[in-house]
Amino acid sequence: MRERLEQQVSFLLEVDKMKKIYRQTHILGKDRAENDAEHSWHLALMAFLLAEYANEQVDVAKVMKMVLVHDLVEIDAGDTYAYDEAGNASKRQRELQAAERIFGLLPGEQGQELRALWDEFEEYETPEAKYAHTLDNFQPLLLNNANGGGDWKDHQVRKSQIYKRNAKTGEGSREIWEYMAELIDGNIMAGNIEEA
Amino acid sequence: MRERLEQQVSFLLEVDKMKKIYRQTHILGKDRAENDAEHSWHLALMAFLLAEYANEQVDVAKVMKMVLVHDLVEIDAGDTYAYDEAGNASKRQRELQAAERIFGLLPGEQGQELRALWDEFEEYETPEAKYAHTLDNFQPLLLNNANGGGDWKDHQVRKSQIYKRNAKTGEGSREIWEYMAELIDGNIMAGNIEEA
Repeated sequence: MRERLEQQVSFLLEVDKMKKIYRQTHILGKDRAENDAEHSWHLALMAFLLAEYANEQVDVAKVMKMVLVHDLVEIDAGDTYAYDEAGNASKRQRELQAAERIFGLLPGEQGQELRALWDEFEEYETPEAKYAHTLDNFQPLLLNNANGGGDWKDHQVRKSQIYKRNAKTGEGSREIWEYMAELIDGNIMAGNIEEA
Repeated sequence: MRERLEQQVSFLLEVDKMKKIYRQTHILGKDRAENDAEHSWHLALMAFLLAEYANEQVDVAKVMKMVLVHDLVEIDAGDTYAYDEAGNASKRQRELQAAERIFGLLPGEQGQELRALWDEFEEYETPEAKYAHTLDNFQPLLLNNANGGGDWKDHQVRKSQIYKRNAKTGEGSREIWEYMAELIDGNIMAGNIEEA
């Protein structure tokens, strides 16, 4: 029993590193970049507050767990910016290795449970995975829009890149994707996102 | 529908301020203080990973929601250090006003749902509230211990203060409280916590 608790504690201390993995998105007010722990907290809150907009009925508890762990692999693999093509090419392999190590810190069946949640998220097939991805794409867009769209401008992001990245966002929630599309249009009009 | 989503978005942007409310606890490595969003993410993860140690059967999804929102009132009321007696005397009134304003940003019944979760946490009576409090006390102790106990030392915290604060921690989980008591003993022996 004590050994099991010690394994769980080791995992909980290891994942503290999420608080030092900084993303491209900035917190509101743009004081600094957001980290993965903050992002994951925000998504978990959204998971239950916005569940009514999921296209299909979702198991909200499962979505919360999924978004709480979806970025843990970045402890080893780092955050890959959505529009970094070279980084995204090697991302999958780096993340698979990270998953082996990090979920492997937990007692066997618990590590497998978390790994299964991460695999399900990555496979993008179940209603929960689709809805979780919608939230994962919605949250940074919401912050970036509220911050005046500077992150898009700094990276000279084009509309076509955003649409490519969000090709499946509507599969999780049509209503949230429609709302996002309006925010994107507003930022094109404001000159923050390039039209092409 | 659109007005409802706008209200939810306003709330989600308002609570982004959690990322700027710094606690007395430090993240692992002691680089900087931990903020409320990070703390809440860590607790939500613990809620499902450590549920087996709860004294009574708990609704894990409810505990996750509870810990995700339990500190939102600090957006207005600020973080009150556990061993700040003057601050703790006025805390309740400040937090009640904060709850009115912050949960009031959401559509009516959703604001009430979150308010009910916060009230339940504060009332400390249900199995879920007791277990959530155990986690809320365990997490900073785990970080502080892993950081060498410096936070206790800096604040000259006494064993009697820690035991007073944790008088009910064992009500949520005897096993976690026993583990915590061992960590406390180790820090008394190391001279980080005053024996008295």
